[in-house]
Amino acid sequence: MTSTHEIYKKQRTSMQVATNVTEQKHHVSRAKRGQILGHLRGFRGCTVWFTGLSGAGKTSIAFELEAYLVSHGIPVYGLDGDNMRTGLNKDLSFSKQDREENIRRVAEVAKLFADAGQICLCSFISPFAEDRDLARIIHRESDLPFFEVFVDTPLEVCEQRDTKGLYVKARKGDIKGFTGIDQPYETPEHPELVVKTVSLTVEESMLQVVEMLQENGIIPKEVINQDVVEELIVPEERLAAAREEAASLPGININLIDLQWVQVLSEGWASPLKGFMRENEFLQTLHFNCNFNGKNAINQSIPIVLPCTAEDKERLNETSGISLYYNGICVAILRKPEFYHHRKEERCARQFGTTNKNHPHIKLIMESGDWLVGGDLEVLHRIRWNDGLDEYRYTPNELRAKFKAMRADAVFAFQLRNPIHNGHALLMSDTKRQLQERGFKRPVLLLHPLGGWVKDDDVPLPERMQQHQAVMDEGLLDAQSTVLAIFPSPMMYAGPTEVQWHAKARMNAGANFYIVGRDPAGVPHPDGKEASLDGNLYDVMHGGRVLKMAPGLDTLEIIPFRVAAYDKRHQRMAFFDPSRKDDFDFISGTRMRALARSGENPPDGFMAPKAWQVLVSYYQSLHL
Amino acid sequence: MTSTHEIYKKQRTSMQVATNVTEQKHHVSRAKRGQILGHLRGFRGCTVWFTGLSGAGKTSIAFELEAYLVSHGIPVYGLDGDNMRTGLNKDLSFSKQDREENIRRVAEVAKLFADAGQICLCSFISPFAEDRDLARIIHRESDLPFFEVFVDTPLEVCEQRDTKGLYVKARKGDIKGFTGIDQPYETPEHPELVVKTVSLTVEESMLQVVEMLQENGIIPKEVINQDVVEELIVPEERLAAAREEAASLPGININLIDLQWVQVLSEGWASPLKGFMRENEFLQTLHFNCNFNGKNAINQSIPIVLPCTAEDKERLNETSGISLYYNGICVAILRKPEFYHHRKEERCARQFGTTNKNHPHIKLIMESGDWLVGGDLEVLHRIRWNDGLDEYRYTPNELRAKFKAMRADAVFAFQLRNPIHNGHALLMSDTKRQLQERGFKRPVLLLHPLGGWVKDDDVPLPERMQQHQAVMDEGLLDAQSTVLAIFPSPMMYAGPTEVQWHAKARMNAGANFYIVGRDPAGVPHPDGKEASLDGNLYDVMHGGRVLKMAPGLDTLEIIPFRVAAYDKRHQRMAFFDPSRKDDFDFISGTRMRALARSGENPPDGFMAPKAWQVLVSYYQSLHL
Repeated sequence: MTSTHEIYKKQRTSMQVATNVTEQKHHVSRAKRGQILGHLRGFRGCTVWFTGLSGAGKTSIAFELEAYLVSHGIPVYGLDGDNMRTGLNKDLSFSKQDREENIRRVAEVAKLFADAGQICLCSFISPFAEDRDLARIIHRESDLPFFEVFVDTPLEVCEQRDTKGLYVKARKGDIKGFTGIDQPYETPEHPELVVKTVSLTVEESMLQVVEMLQENGIIPKEVINQDVVEELIVPEERLAAAREEAASLPGININLIDLQWVQVLSEGWASPLKGFMRENEFLQTLHFNCNFNGKNAINQSIPIVLPCTAEDKERLNETSGISLYYNGICVAILRKPEFYHHRKEERCARQFGTTNKNHPHIKLIMESGDWLVGGDLEVLHRIRWNDGLDEYRYTPNELRAKFKAMRADAVFAFQLRNPIHNGHALLMSDTKRQLQERGFKRPVLLLHPLGGWVKDDDVPLPERMQQHQAVMDEGLLDAQSTVLAIFPSPMMYAGPTEVQWHAKARMNAGANFYIVGRDPAGVPHPDGKEASLDGNLYDVMHGGRVLKMAPGLDTLEIIPFRVAAYDKRHQRMAFFDPSRKDDFDFISGTRMRALARSGENPPDGFMAPKAWQVLVSYYQSLHL
Repeated sequence: MTSTHEIYKKQRTSMQVATNVTEQKHHVSRAKRGQILGHLRGFRGCTVWFTGLSGAGKTSIAFELEAYLVSHGIPVYGLDGDNMRTGLNKDLSFSKQDREENIRRVAEVAKLFADAGQICLCSFISPFAEDRDLARIIHRESDLPFFEVFVDTPLEVCEQRDTKGLYVKARKGDIKGFTGIDQPYETPEHPELVVKTVSLTVEESMLQVVEMLQENGIIPKEVINQDVVEELIVPEERLAAAREEAASLPGININLIDLQWVQVLSEGWASPLKGFMRENEFLQTLHFNCNFNGKNAINQSIPIVLPCTAEDKERLNETSGISLYYNGICVAILRKPEFYHHRKEERCARQFGTTNKNHPHIKLIMESGDWLVGGDLEVLHRIRWNDGLDEYRYTPNELRAKFKAMRADAVFAFQLRNPIHNGHALLMSDTKRQLQERGFKRPVLLLHPLGGWVKDDDVPLPERMQQHQAVMDEGLLDAQSTVLAIFPSPMMYAGPTEVQWHAKARMNAGANFYIVGRDPAGVPHPDGKEASLDGNLYDVMHGGRVLKMAPGLDTLEIIPFRVAAYDKRHQRMAFFDPSRKDDFDFISGTRMRALARSGENPPDGFMAPKAWQVLVSYYQSLHL
């Protein structure tokens, strides 16, 4: 095959004249660089200049900020004594003149980085106002933003910390000209930011800089702050006014599943989604399984939409806000509503890969309104169900706080909508072991049963929670490193499309690892065994494969599920070993249900006995 | 609402201990930086050091390379006299010692950029081997790749060019110590690359550096070289061997549409696709309308797949290659075939947003094989149809060469599968005018009718081409700035999904702008007018909206189509003006066909008369 270079060359050689016309005469413009290379639209380079006493925390904050920005996909580079004094400035002494030259050079290099579209973090004591002003002027002349950040830590505190033992030496006179001891520190008069580090953690200090960069349009507000998700619940102080306004707005009634979505949205599981999808978000989800923030893909595989009737649309088309009522109670305001056609056939086709009306969730969609209404959501109170299970309903931010409190250095999530058998327990313990082998000290399991709508023949949530709690109580999972909580989403049985949603929501709750098994969110084909090659609506391997390839889940690592089965030889659940496959018994859900219904016991070691009894009681109750 | 910062702060303050444990102690590692910030997996920072005489072309090549890399999404920054001598190094003279210090500082700064993950391009005469060696050592000590590129242009040529008039001054003695005149240039002994610029264009020189960076794993081979697309046709010198091998391989028969896809793939319209899709590519296309190269999304909205039967699969499962036969002639070899289930219901649902078996293309899919076979394609000869229209069938690379030869500075593409009326002509002329207003000097129109399979009631390709040529001949489009060519793809009638394919293929052919109208690639709902809200399968606005949001089409700007209609007052096609809407007559395809069938003329100014006669002849021939 002809190499592409050769083709290219042939074209070029014969077209020297044309080539010269378009010849590049300058560096690429900053605008173009930002447009193409900036992951985030509107991002631009700048220099953040940290000044303050030795030990004030300049470098700690800069390092924290560097890590934070990189983890959010923002190009950043740090200059400090370590990389400047050992390289570019190693010819400079610590004389006054050389210290000035040191700062000048740093400023010139920072300017180049800013020009390259990077956020350049400079951490230098830089005690003299004149030097810092020169740095500012160097940037201003090149039309590049410059932020002076005064890291304001009192001398006593710095001296007390004395991380490098320099203050001791300076007091002894072993170091001459030490800032704060025998050389003055000229406090900045008009810095862009003063960070008073005393009583703040490094992270809190760092976030003040982030906020400053956001306010100056250097980094976008929406993308940053993924460390907590934004909730859509009206804060206490605005509640009275919001309730009053809600009472004055026209309303529509929503059903149980709509309310479950209100909960999902309000708690930030679908963040950065700000409410029920508008049509652009809906189209992006259907076609790309993502929403976009500039060029940044954020996984959002399933539509979160609010159906309504043509009459509702006619009645509410002109309003600026709609109150949502569930069972006569106003739960939320939908702002700036946007109505658009609910093209159900197309939606189901793209969301489920089928339009079969016997599919349990498609049936609901086909019965729902012919219009959708999107808009920003303000939820008037946290959604509670008062079913005795609310204590298990943590929001993503509550889960994140919990993981922090547990000092977790890895969180692995397990989604389920079925009872836990010992194979699951084995799998979860094994994942923990793998993470420990990889060097994580305190991996935490998020055991996260789905708590919203499920089809009629699934085990209801109260019984599942009882069963899961029994498994925990019997010690099959380590209670110290497990959080049992409820995921409030309804179930869609949308296979590879839905598994992305299950993963993304857990990513929002702080999980770094997600376990995926065979046929996640799958169902039998609604037209029966003959309707597809294996009787399933989705290929059992597609969920895991699609999840691994899905864009916008970058901070989540997917851990594939190893198949466990009952090992008859060792009378316990074990990972399937094909070399002695006759030893293994795959106990199907159907067989399990049949055993439970008849009150029989499954083979020893299949399920914790207390947990099994929960199922027996449930299935027998169905026959009463 | 509580600000996310406040929530964040609350969590942090209460968790100071936990925070300290995970506190960042170092700069972000290069590996992590590359993983998160590198658009392309495997990308890493380095320094390219251009050395050579004044006027050798160092900066020209570096600027060209900078533009090239930025346009491919690769972070790059250039250092040269302009930005170093005016800033960091403005304290340095041109004495031997200061020239050494100049080079040392440049090398130190380049090292920092390379460390930040950028490709740093340094363009300096740097005549002394010792200085260049120091630059190399500085990088080596930090474990960063360093490439010395000797821009080898003979002194006579440099002096002849004398772009800055410096040689004249040096010869006169106005400049002392000028390299090549009264100071030696020490030719590099072991540079990583020597570029002999004489007889090369700047682009050719630049591409040699690109090749070096590829070979050293700095930039990936696949992503780069978008300037030409890779073709999958066996080159002449390997043809005899390939034919012999093909004859020895087991074969399958392919149909007309399969052959059209072979043509599409072989000519690079779907590049970087290397053949019929394997299952991973198929899944990515169905779920994300993209294929991925690392994290880089490449738009590929429609599956390009080869169906086969279960018997074929059984027969061929173990082979390393399959020969593809059309009408008894071997056209291609499919390498390393991968067989997977053709889940037709799911495929059609996701590709078309419906599973309706009366849809013209879905009908074909439902009748096709139950398995798909993917694999790399080697096509034995260029696909030709010998229908008198092959002269219009340019490959993407041929089109690119044509645009270059026309010295086009913008290419706007118009996809069509219907006759051109004067409204279309108006729209295309208007787009050209818009581009000229934006400063483009030579915008070229790619008038690009689809040439593959279409449904029975569309006008066949030969008649359409005759009609289009008549429009050109009558001067309604400027022949000097228009390329009329055939797009070989089959038609799918897949609306918003297909329009992305139409745009992506033209992007591969070098188009920068793509015109999109109402309901691109749309069809009436197969179940008739009552089956959807407006009688159409797709919302007429969705195609344009989805296309504008589609990922992986970054170098293409979408230009929305303004609606044109027949202006009865002025007796010509004009952009619809809602303020005098009664003046406008929307002449439907149905009405046009009825007029043509009966041999009547449409209103004056609706279509070029010669072009109209082509349609009259065609429609009347159907009645014979």
